[in-house]
Amino acid sequence: MTDIAMIEAAAARLSGHARRTPLLSSPFLDEIAGRRVLVKAECLQHTGSFKFRGAWSALSALDPSRRAQGVIAYSSGNHAQGVALAAARHDAPAVIVMPSDAPRLKIENTRALGAEVVLYDRATEDRDAIGARLAEERDLTLIRPFDEPLVIAGQGTTGLEIAEQAAEAGVTTADVLTCCGGGGLTAGIALALEARAPGLRVRPVEPSGFDDTARSLAAGRILSNPTLTGSLCDAIVTPAPGRITFPILARLCGPGLAVSDDEALEAMALACQRLKIVLEPGGAVALAAALFRPEAIEGGAVICTASGGNVDAPVFARALGRLAD
Amino acid sequence: MTDIAMIEAAAARLSGHARRTPLLSSPFLDEIAGRRVLVKAECLQHTGSFKFRGAWSALSALDPSRRAQGVIAYSSGNHAQGVALAAARHDAPAVIVMPSDAPRLKIENTRALGAEVVLYDRATEDRDAIGARLAEERDLTLIRPFDEPLVIAGQGTTGLEIAEQAAEAGVTTADVLTCCGGGGLTAGIALALEARAPGLRVRPVEPSGFDDTARSLAAGRILSNPTLTGSLCDAIVTPAPGRITFPILARLCGPGLAVSDDEALEAMALACQRLKIVLEPGGAVALAAALFRPEAIEGGAVICTASGGNVDAPVFARALGRLAD
Repeated sequence: MTDIAMIEAAAARLSGHARRTPLLSSPFLDEIAGRRVLVKAECLQHTGSFKFRGAWSALSALDPSRRAQGVIAYSSGNHAQGVALAAARHDAPAVIVMPSDAPRLKIENTRALGAEVVLYDRATEDRDAIGARLAEERDLTLIRPFDEPLVIAGQGTTGLEIAEQAAEAGVTTADVLTCCGGGGLTAGIALALEARAPGLRVRPVEPSGFDDTARSLAAGRILSNPTLTGSLCDAIVTPAPGRITFPILARLCGPGLAVSDDEALEAMALACQRLKIVLEPGGAVALAAALFRPEAIEGGAVICTASGGNVDAPVFARALGRLAD
Repeated sequence: MTDIAMIEAAAARLSGHARRTPLLSSPFLDEIAGRRVLVKAECLQHTGSFKFRGAWSALSALDPSRRAQGVIAYSSGNHAQGVALAAARHDAPAVIVMPSDAPRLKIENTRALGAEVVLYDRATEDRDAIGARLAEERDLTLIRPFDEPLVIAGQGTTGLEIAEQAAEAGVTTADVLTCCGGGGLTAGIALALEARAPGLRVRPVEPSGFDDTARSLAAGRILSNPTLTGSLCDAIVTPAPGRITFPILARLCGPGLAVSDDEALEAMALACQRLKIVLEPGGAVALAAALFRPEAIEGGAVICTASGGNVDAPVFARALGRLAD
């Protein structure tokens, strides 16, 4: 199981390969939120999301002969690109199973990074089954997107950086809002902060109507989303919290928050205008909660992950339209 | 005159106040340029441009009683915001003289940061004269946008970071392309690199038709732009290289490069898509030259400053339109 030693070991393997992303801020965002807002800009990570960390952590820990045989991943897009680039830099073949309705940019990028892409129908097919079958047929190592201790450890390196950067900013007590899908980033950050910055409490943020993690935390057991389609925040819509991530979340995180697609778009517009970063809807939900759920947050500062920026141009233009006169 | 000791001293004063911005990259940009492209993302600096560095450098070096009397600056926008925020954080009043055709966002931001804004007509009025008169009337200290040794020293801290970050990336010989207006950033970086990374050569990039610096460098004397209006790259259109900056540029920099507004917009679109950063046209010219003037650049890597991101939404939407199907 992932612990702080495993996260520190992942940080050592990632050193010189992953980016230490900045913790950004703007007085204009502080004004809206009514408190200091610190934004961990993981959209600036290689491949445009934090997923590169977990992918590198898992790839770099594989036995070299296993790695040379190749890896496989199933992903709505960001994990795909992370695995594709991490595999390419390790000279390992990569097969990526992606939903056919994933943003086109993510599919194209994954192919351009050298991976073989296999598409499936999110509504009618089971990506886990497809991934397992291909892995067996070709003797590939499956890199799970979140329910994998090495991946959680890699995402946890984000938490090590948040602990250091928050301390540099003079913040030792705050809510840390994470964009939460299966819970790999949320669990990794929570474990890192438990050890390195115990005054920082992790709270997952999800799209309204797809808040399986918040409901699961409230119920004390894993609950599923009733549907998996219809959210702009495709990157963080997953069936349910993971079997490995959920116990970590239940011990360390919560309560969860949820925001609407409109609020995510508004946060994207403000991140563009005030921080000069590009976010995708699923990467903007934590910032949206920081800005638009002030009453649900405690303390004089809030930290949020801006977890990804792989947005198709039409969706980004829609967000940008909110800045017009 | 600015030298490396003055830049190091500025770095010490900026420590904990300015951001150490990341050096970004993308295999997709490398592919276009035909070499490694490293982007110093100063759009992520406080107030959305490198100008905060020079402003902080000048403000922090003022005698406290002079500073409390107030400062004044004339600026097309980015220097204005930099001075406004640096003054506010020093509890000093700030008066900013801005052209009435500056992007509305820059004018609004400057006011919101607590400065008093005085507008003038760029075509018919002389901002230097207006600034000098107001400074005298109210006993304010004038913070010049580029022809000021302390400001050049502050911008030079960007060069110290580039030297370190390039070395970390394994790059010791390369062209460093700067977005160049009056030459403060270009001169500061050139002085820093002369001392800390002599294999890195600074080359200013300007908008086509407003390439006073390139022509001045070629002629060996200061030449002016024939006109100051008509470029999308408003942030870097200045009458002529500075009397203080030009001798530094003439000794250390060149030859200059120029790109079109269209190429700047294309670079903005690619920076958005591949680096997840927001650039204004004037902040994108160096990246545009890196991508679209490969034959004019030497070596296996090129470094470019992405100097600012304060773009009005309609102009950014125009750039983004290039990413549509």
